[in-house]
Amino acid sequence: MGTHIISLMLTAVYAGTFDPVTHGHLDIIRRAAQLYDRLIVAVPRAGGSKQPLFSHAARLELLRAEVTGQSGIEVADFEGLLVDFARASGARLLLRGLRASSDFEYEFQMALMNRALAPDLETVFMITRPEYMFVSSSLIREVAAAGGDIAQFVPERVRTAIIAALAR
Amino acid sequence: MGTHIISLMLTAVYAGTFDPVTHGHLDIIRRAAQLYDRLIVAVPRAGGSKQPLFSHAARLELLRAEVTGQSGIEVADFEGLLVDFARASGARLLLRGLRASSDFEYEFQMALMNRALAPDLETVFMITRPEYMFVSSSLIREVAAAGGDIAQFVPERVRTAIIAALAR
Amino acid sequence: MGTHIISLMLTAVYAGTFDPVTHGHLDIIRRAAQLYDRLIVAVPRAGGSKQPLFSHAARLELLRAEVTGQSGIEVADFEGLLVDFARASGARLLLRGLRASSDFEYEFQMALMNRALAPDLETVFMITRPEYMFVSSSLIREVAAAGGDIAQFVPERVRTAIIAALAR
Amino acid sequence: MGTHIISLMLTAVYAGTFDPVTHGHLDIIRRAAQLYDRLIVAVPRAGGSKQPLFSHAARLELLRAEVTGQSGIEVADFEGLLVDFARASGARLLLRGLRASSDFEYEFQMALMNRALAPDLETVFMITRPEYMFVSSSLIREVAAAGGDIAQFVPERVRTAIIAALAR
Amino acid sequence: MGTHIISLMLTAVYAGTFDPVTHGHLDIIRRAAQLYDRLIVAVPRAGGSKQPLFSHAARLELLRAEVTGQSGIEVADFEGLLVDFARASGARLLLRGLRASSDFEYEFQMALMNRALAPDLETVFMITRPEYMFVSSSLIREVAAAGGDIAQFVPERVRTAIIAALAR
Amino acid sequence: MGTHIISLMLTAVYAGTFDPVTHGHLDIIRRAAQLYDRLIVAVPRAGGSKQPLFSHAARLELLRAEVTGQSGIEVADFEGLLVDFARASGARLLLRGLRASSDFEYEFQMALMNRALAPDLETVFMITRPEYMFVSSSLIREVAAAGGDIAQFVPERVRTAIIAALAR
Repeated sequence: MGTHIISLMLTAVYAGTFDPVTHGHLDIIRRAAQLYDRLIVAVPRAGGSKQPLFSHAARLELLRAEVTGQSGIEVADFEGLLVDFARASGARLLLRGLRASSDFEYEFQMALMNRALAPDLETVFMITRPEYMFVSSSLIREVAAAGGDIAQFVPERVRTAIIAALAR
Repeated sequence: MGTHIISLMLTAVYAGTFDPVTHGHLDIIRRAAQLYDRLIVAVPRAGGSKQPLFSHAARLELLRAEVTGQSGIEVADFEGLLVDFARASGARLLLRGLRASSDFEYEFQMALMNRALAPDLETVFMITRPEYMFVSSSLIREVAAAGGDIAQFVPERVRTAIIAALAR
Repeated sequence: MGTHIISLMLTAVYAGTFDPVTHGHLDIIRRAAQLYDRLIVAVPRAGGSKQPLFSHAARLELLRAEVTGQSGIEVADFEGLLVDFARASGARLLLRGLRASSDFEYEFQMALMNRALAPDLETVFMITRPEYMFVSSSLIREVAAAGGDIAQFVPERVRTAIIAALAR
Repeated sequence: MGTHIISLMLTAVYAGTFDPVTHGHLDIIRRAAQLYDRLIVAVPRAGGSKQPLFSHAARLELLRAEVTGQSGIEVADFEGLLVDFARASGARLLLRGLRASSDFEYEFQMALMNRALAPDLETVFMITRPEYMFVSSSLIREVAAAGGDIAQFVPERVRTAIIAALAR
Repeated sequence: MGTHIISLMLTAVYAGTFDPVTHGHLDIIRRAAQLYDRLIVAVPRAGGSKQPLFSHAARLELLRAEVTGQSGIEVADFEGLLVDFARASGARLLLRGLRASSDFEYEFQMALMNRALAPDLETVFMITRPEYMFVSSSLIREVAAAGGDIAQFVPERVRTAIIAALAR
Repeated sequence: MGTHIISLMLTAVYAGTFDPVTHGHLDIIRRAAQLYDRLIVAVPRAGGSKQPLFSHAARLELLRAEVTGQSGIEVADFEGLLVDFARASGARLLLRGLRASSDFEYEFQMALMNRALAPDLETVFMITRPEYMFVSSSLIREVAAAGGDIAQFVPERVRTAIIAALAR
C-alpha cells in the first residue's frame, strides 16, 4: 500500500524563462503547489528571448526569493530537453499556464511534440486568473522600459530588480 | 505524514454528455486515471444536445461497460452544478479534454465561470491524441446516420448500440 | 461654430438581447456613456435565443431600471434592421462589447455586413473588463437554472427576476 | 499517354446547402471551374438548417439557373455520405471555400473526418474574395427577413426568390 | 453648457509605426476623423521593427504629407508610454484598427495593459475595409523588396519613397 | 481537343524554406503529386529564418534526394516574387499545407496578397496528416539542438544532415 501511494505521488514541472517572473506565474505556481505533491519550477539554461533582461542566474534567484518557504516547491535549472529533465526528476506532469491572450496554437504544438518525445509524460494546462491574462514578461519589460509603473504586475522585489537592470 | 499524503490524494471529475463515448474520450480517461488517484466520469442528468441519441441511462451504461475493471475509475451521474457535485465528491480537479478543433473559447469561459463559482476547484486541460482530434460525438452521430463506418472512432459495443439506436 | 459642434455630437447605439443584462453589459454601458454624447441601448423585438428567459418587455424594463438616472443613456426597442434604426436615431456609431471569449469572427462578420448595408455608420468595439470576460447571458441562465449563485454577475434586481422567472 | 492524361482528369465536388446560393459561392464555383476539368456542385438531401428558406428542389433549381451554360459545371443532389457520393462520381477532390469569418475549426474537423473515411479523397480549400467574406447564407436570410437590401450579395434571380419565399 | 460640450469634445490617438503608412491605415484615419473632434496620429520614437525601412523622421513626413489639409487630424511623435502621451494630449480614446488577419490576441493584451495603466482611457477598435485586410506594412516591405508592384496598397508618394529607400 | 487538355494540365507550386524538410512536407508533396500533373517544390533564395540551419543549396539537395524518382515532381529555386516564378513556370496553383497549429491568419494574408498581385493564380490549401500537425521545421531544429531524437519527424538522410550541421 505504501508502494501504491508512492507510485501515485505526483511531481509536476512548470518550465519557463521567467524574464521576469510575474504575478501571473506566481498565481499558477501557488495553485499548482496545492494540487501536486512536488512542483519543480524549471528554467532552461538556453532559450528565451535573444537579449534577456536578466541573466539565467538572476532569474533563478528572483524565482527562489518568491517561493522560498512554500513547501513542495523547488526551483531548478536544466539543460537539453525539458522531457529528459522531467523524467530524470521523476515527474509525470508538464504544467503550462494558459492565458486568453497566450499563443494557444504554440502550446498545442509543444504539448504534442513533448508527447511524441516522451509518451509517459502528460502536459496539463491551467488557466491564469482573468486579472493577469494580459500580463506577459515581454510586455512588462516593454512597459518598464518606457517608464511605466509595473507595481501591479510583479512582486516588489522583482520591480526593484527590473528598474536596476534597465538603469544599467 | 499519512494525513499529509491523504490530504494530497487527488480526485478528478471528467464531465460530459458522452452521446456517445468515443475513443477520444476513452484516451483521456485512460491517461487521467494513471495520473490521479480517483477519476469520476460524470454525466449530467440535464444538458447536452436537445435530441440525444442515447438516454441518460444508456450513456451511463455504455460508459460503465468501457471502463469496467479499470481501478480508480468511477462513472456517476449528477444533477445541478458540476462544481457542487465535484465538491461533494471530494474532488479538487475538473478535467477537460482539449481537441485542436474543440471550441477553446467555450472551454475558457466555462473554466473561468467554474472558478468564480468554486475558487477551491481547479480546471485542468489535457490534449486529445492527434488521431482523435476530429472525433466529436456529434460528428459521429452524423456520420453514422449517413451510413458511414464509425468503427475506427468508437468501441465495438458503442458502434453496435449506435446502429441499433438509429434503426429505431 | 455651434453648427460645427452639433454636427460632431456623437450618438452611439449598443444593441443586444440582454436576456438578462449582466454586469459585463453595464460596464460597457457606463464607460461608453462617458465617451459619447448620447448612448441608445437598443433591444430588437425579434431575434435572440429561441426561448428567451424574459419577454422583450421585461428585458426593456430590467435595462431601464439599471440605467435610470444616468444622463445621456436611453433604452429603446426596434424592429427591422439595426442600421435603419441607428440612422433614424441620428447615430453614427454602432457599439459592440468584445469579450476574450466572445465569438470574434461573428462580430467581424456582422460589422462588415452592417458597413455594406450602411457605409455611413461605423462599428466600434470596446473590451469588457477581464473579470467579466466569461460572463455571458446564456451561461448565467444555465448556472441559475442549475441552482448556482449568480449574485456576482448580475445586479440584485436582475438576480431576483431570474429566480422568479425560473420558478414559473 | 492518353491513358495517363485521363487518369489525371480531375473532378472536384463542392458541396453545400446553398440556402440560398450567394455571390461568394458563385465566385468559388467560377474559379474552381477554371482549375478542374469537372466541378460537381452537390446539395445533400438531408442536413442544413432546421428550417430551410428554400426546399431542396428549389435550391437545386436556383443553383442550376446560375451555372447554366458554364461548361464543366454540374449541379447534383446526393444522399448519405459526401465521400461516397464523391467516389461514385469519380471525384478525387472535395472543395471547400474558406471565409475569414468561417468556422475554420469546423472545416478542419470535417476534412480530417472525411480523410479518415476516404483516404483516397483530398479536401482542398480556396479562399473567398475579401468583399464576400462576411456574406453567409444565414446572414443573408436574417438581413432579408429584417427588410434589408440584399442585392449586392446574391444574384437578382435569387433575390427575387428570397423576397417571394419570405412573403409566404 | 459650453463646459458640458467642451468636456465631451473627443480626442482620439491612433498610434503606430507606419513603416510605411498604407491605404489601410489611411482608411482608418479618414473614417475616425469623421467621428472624433480631433485625431492624433502618433508615432513612437522607439519600437517597431528592428530594422525600419524608413527613419522615424521620414515616417512622420510621409504621414503628414498624406493627411495635410484634412481638418481635425494631427501627426505627432512621442516618447515613453502611449497612455502618458494620450493623457498629456487630452485624449480619452486610444484607437486601433483591426484586420481579419491581425493579431487579435495581441491587441487584446495591449488594450487590457493600457487600461490597467490608465483606467480613464478607453481603447476602441475599428475594422479595416475588407479589400485592405491583408495589407500590412511588413508584407508591403517584403513584396516591394522582391520587386512586386505595390501601387494598389500605398499612396503614390509612399510607393516612390519605398523604391528609393530600397535602392539605397 | 488536345489544346483543351493541355490548357487544363495543372501545374502547382509548393513553396517553402524547408529548413529542414519534414515528413509533414513530404506527406503534402506526395499527395499533391497524385492530384496535379506537375508539382514544383520551390525554395526562395532569400527569406526564411535569419540563421538557417542549412544553406539554400543544401536545402535544395536534401529535397531533391527525397523526391527523386517520383514522376511529376520537380525541385526548383527562385528569386523575387513567388507569383512571378509561378507564372513563368506555367503554374495555375499555389499550394500551401495547413497544420492545425499553423498560423492560419498569416496564410490567409499571404493568399490574399498573392491574389491581389496575380488574380490568375489560385492558392489552394491541403491539410497535413494529424500525426504531423505539430511538426514544424523550427521545432525540429530546437529539439535536435537540445539533443532530442527527431527520427520520427524527418527522413533518415535529413536526420543525419541535421546532426552533422549542429556538430559544426
